[in-house]
Amino acid sequence: MIESETRPEVLIEDETLRDGLQLESRIFSLEEKLRIYRQLSEAGVRRIQAGSFVNPKKVPQMADTEQLLEEIRKGGQEGPLLSALILNDKGLERALSCKMEHVSMSVSVSNTHSQKNAGKTAANALSAMIVLIRQAIGAGLAVRAGLQCSFGCAYEGAIHENTVLEAAEKLAGAGAQEVNLADTTGMANPLGIAKLVERVNRELPELTISLHLHDTRGLGLANMYAGYQAGVRTFDASTGGLGGCPFVKGAAGNVPTEDAVNMFSSMGVGTGVDMVKICDTVKFLEQLLGRKLPGRMKMVLDAEK
Amino acid sequence: MIESETRPEVLIEDETLRDGLQLESRIFSLEEKLRIYRQLSEAGVRRIQAGSFVNPKKVPQMADTEQLLEEIRKGGQEGPLLSALILNDKGLERALSCKMEHVSMSVSVSNTHSQKNAGKTAANALSAMIVLIRQAIGAGLAVRAGLQCSFGCAYEGAIHENTVLEAAEKLAGAGAQEVNLADTTGMANPLGIAKLVERVNRELPELTISLHLHDTRGLGLANMYAGYQAGVRTFDASTGGLGGCPFVKGAAGNVPTEDAVNMFSSMGVGTGVDMVKICDTVKFLEQLLGRKLPGRMKMVLDAEK
Repeated sequence: MIESETRPEVLIEDETLRDGLQLESRIFSLEEKLRIYRQLSEAGVRRIQAGSFVNPKKVPQMADTEQLLEEIRKGGQEGPLLSALILNDKGLERALSCKMEHVSMSVSVSNTHSQKNAGKTAANALSAMIVLIRQAIGAGLAVRAGLQCSFGCAYEGAIHENTVLEAAEKLAGAGAQEVNLADTTGMANPLGIAKLVERVNRELPELTISLHLHDTRGLGLANMYAGYQAGVRTFDASTGGLGGCPFVKGAAGNVPTEDAVNMFSSMGVGTGVDMVKICDTVKFLEQLLGRKLPGRMKMVLDAEK
Repeated sequence: MIESETRPEVLIEDETLRDGLQLESRIFSLEEKLRIYRQLSEAGVRRIQAGSFVNPKKVPQMADTEQLLEEIRKGGQEGPLLSALILNDKGLERALSCKMEHVSMSVSVSNTHSQKNAGKTAANALSAMIVLIRQAIGAGLAVRAGLQCSFGCAYEGAIHENTVLEAAEKLAGAGAQEVNLADTTGMANPLGIAKLVERVNRELPELTISLHLHDTRGLGLANMYAGYQAGVRTFDASTGGLGGCPFVKGAAGNVPTEDAVNMFSSMGVGTGVDMVKICDTVKFLEQLLGRKLPGRMKMVLDAEK
């Protein structure tokens, strides 16, 4: 293992506490979430999506997001940048009363996926998000706005590059600092990643691009590498590879945080994250969930013991 | 899924019957092997490593290589190019009496790995292989010569690029048409792949480079993509991702053939291989072995049913 000694060049947002846990039938306790947060923080993760301000009846896994953030803040010290997902003005209100500095939002660029997932057309969902972005920016928040199905949709197949570009343009116009291009159903391929990223970078240079990659077809790390080569420096990941999409059959988890850290560190690219510590969190998650997670590096470390 | 309509641009050598089966405690029958061969052949695989001419006491899984080749040839029609692994002059003799037209050989560029695996220094193993290459070429065979641990060794860590280059130069000098750079313990990273491939291509343009990638750390497809970008057009793979290295703890299987085909086809790069048919072979292997294999595309196809 080559450990990079350079300063962190790549930002990994760990989404275990939100995208990872939201699909689990097991509801994690506040104490368990807090322990995961602290381990990720101690491992050097610099941005953590800790939860979502959504309907607790629909997503009971995220019902204690306020309490979790409160407990995290009691820790006091300088920690990772905290983010949370919001989908509407109620969510924004809750984020503001929680004194968040950063929020994530997300809509689908696929009309069918948007209808099935959010109950509105892609155009309507985008318009609503634009309003929400302006409100959040007006209230002093930093905003990352996500475009689901940017690289294809399980229902519609290929998504035209222009569709993504036009949506991204509106996000930038509304003041979003970062566009999160999401491969919601794991349909992206490395050449497609490179092509879209290069185009968005060229036409909207003021926007930071981040990538949210699902590993459904085993291409998560290949796509992450292609994104890195095309200039992306912010990537979502989830400890152990937890997570997925409930609306698309067969959609597997996110890129495992520890495997992403290993890839970058083996290329001499710093992430600031201690891969071995992340594997402790994988172990904790596997114990609580009673199953093996898809990430590889814990298996490799276990075999080396 | 984008199905490529271009003519095959990438050659995938399927190694299920050799690298895949040689580590299984279950000994596959001749009929089972023949069925796997026929399925792979019908799926459009254009090169198949069907077995090895090695000591049947040490590797009983490969003991029926002669019979398998004989049965395959009874099929008569034009099929995939058949290859087999040989390690010494006894193996060469057997390959010649089997009327092989193509053989694979392999040594390790890591001294420690070579000592543990082959019982000789890397230098001695290479010298012996050079002699064997000349004999095989003299007998009219096409030779692919492999360099194990080209991208790092579990015992020695990093392997110097020059070590690989000097070995490759000797292989070319002896008349080998193809050098197979093998990531035996899954330690390669995409940037390292690109760097070594570009250097070998630049300094030994007469040699065809193929890549043998293990997916230990989940980087198999990322490394394959990096190799493709650097100009490689021949890749080893194994149905379902079967295979590994018995000498290194934690070394997982090869890149799954079906996942490699999916990656290339989603990029519009033809392999000539029908991914869905390969997944039938994955199903057959999973039934015989009584366990799930690591490849993703069968899972995706099953979920789409």
